[in-house]
Amino acid sequence: MYDLRELTEAVRTFNRDRDWEQFHDAKSLLLALVGEVGEVAELLQWQPAATVREDVKAGRLHTRLAEELADVLLYLVMLADETGVDLGPAAAVKLAATAQRYPASKFRGQAPERQ
Amino acid sequence: MYDLRELTEAVRTFNRDRDWEQFHDAKSLLLALVGEVGEVAELLQWQPAATVREDVKAGRLHTRLAEELADVLLYLVMLADETGVDLGPAAAVKLAATAQRYPASKFRGQAPERQ
Amino acid sequence: MYDLRELTEAVRTFNRDRDWEQFHDAKSLLLALVGEVGEVAELLQWQPAATVREDVKAGRLHTRLAEELADVLLYLVMLADETGVDLGPAAAVKLAATAQRYPASKFRGQAPERQ
Amino acid sequence: MYDLRELTEAVRTFNRDRDWEQFHDAKSLLLALVGEVGEVAELLQWQPAATVREDVKAGRLHTRLAEELADVLLYLVMLADETGVDLGPAAAVKLAATAQRYPASKFRGQAPERQ
Repeated sequence: MYDLRELTEAVRTFNRDRDWEQFHDAKSLLLALVGEVGEVAELLQWQPAATVREDVKAGRLHTRLAEELADVLLYLVMLADETGVDLGPAAAVKLAATAQRYPASKFRGQAPERQ
Repeated sequence: MYDLRELTEAVRTFNRDRDWEQFHDAKSLLLALVGEVGEVAELLQWQPAATVREDVKAGRLHTRLAEELADVLLYLVMLADETGVDLGPAAAVKLAATAQRYPASKFRGQAPERQ
Repeated sequence: MYDLRELTEAVRTFNRDRDWEQFHDAKSLLLALVGEVGEVAELLQWQPAATVREDVKAGRLHTRLAEELADVLLYLVMLADETGVDLGPAAAVKLAATAQRYPASKFRGQAPERQ
Repeated sequence: MYDLRELTEAVRTFNRDRDWEQFHDAKSLLLALVGEVGEVAELLQWQPAATVREDVKAGRLHTRLAEELADVLLYLVMLADETGVDLGPAAAVKLAATAQRYPASKFRGQAPERQ
């Protein structure tokens, strides 16, 4: 299921079936997302930066990481739906704006300074 | 752009054009995602839970929230791509597993206990 | 143990005894802190905003919350120590600066706008 | 100001003077803490793991990091106060429990697996 609208629809059905929308105000959903991001962090925190790519692509860490990243996406989809944000177009617009702000010709190979 | 594969491809091109993949180890991308989640939190933190839905759907907060949720998605897509996770199917699998774990007949109207 | 210097010293000893300083670069410690913040979020996410104070002050949630907030503090102390930040004075300086930025006479009863 | 009780008292006075306790339910304070953790993440995300220690200890990054870690501590103190958690003793108890769980003799030099 690659389509964000389909995913949104599936998540809506899931929640409607359980009458769980009542718990899903924006702040609670954001905290749930924070919880899932925390689980990703727990998987990666002690991995050496130099070998994390290889470690992740093989074995158990990969499976668990897939589950946790999925959870992050699911809560992100719920939070966007709750707040009326159309996530796909919003990402496309943001990517285009960022491309303009950091022209490839000027920023090639340079990490963008935050702030 | 609703298709997660298309979005992944667009983000790859964006980063390749700037030679930014070199900065994108999993731990750095996760911290970038944490930074964006933090910006969503700053938008919502003092909103009264009771009125956040209305406040978000009108005016300035909505625009900014769309931008920040977009950023979360963009870094999530990069992190999944870096770690070889296929985000769409992973979310579908997780949703199906969660549906089994919490049957609608048993959990209707009950917030799932964590832990 | 209320003194942040004492706590820092105790944490140093704990890590030195286990030879764990080697894992404690700033980015890894920050991810560990994110993981603990995520656990706090999982405890609070579905609590109704209106009753969380009472729910927390009684029973099991309180014990678990104390443990998770303790973990956040412990990693914060490690991160500060690793990056050479003297946490107590830094907090005092920041509080004084914030007090100047938001004079009580002008901001009484008004949530500070972020941004 | 190294004493967590003194810091708690200073933060209470700060908030009472501005009548800001009304905004400080646990979920809102946690989101504020998440926002500050996000700012720390933005400072560290693109720093190469190998040189972050040196980069942090010199110059501008250090000053900003001190400010952001201070903010994390301030919100942590507020969240603990709001939820009736005595942060210093809780940290001491947790450190002692962790020391028992991971005896130095057995875990020396081994990163603890997060489950």
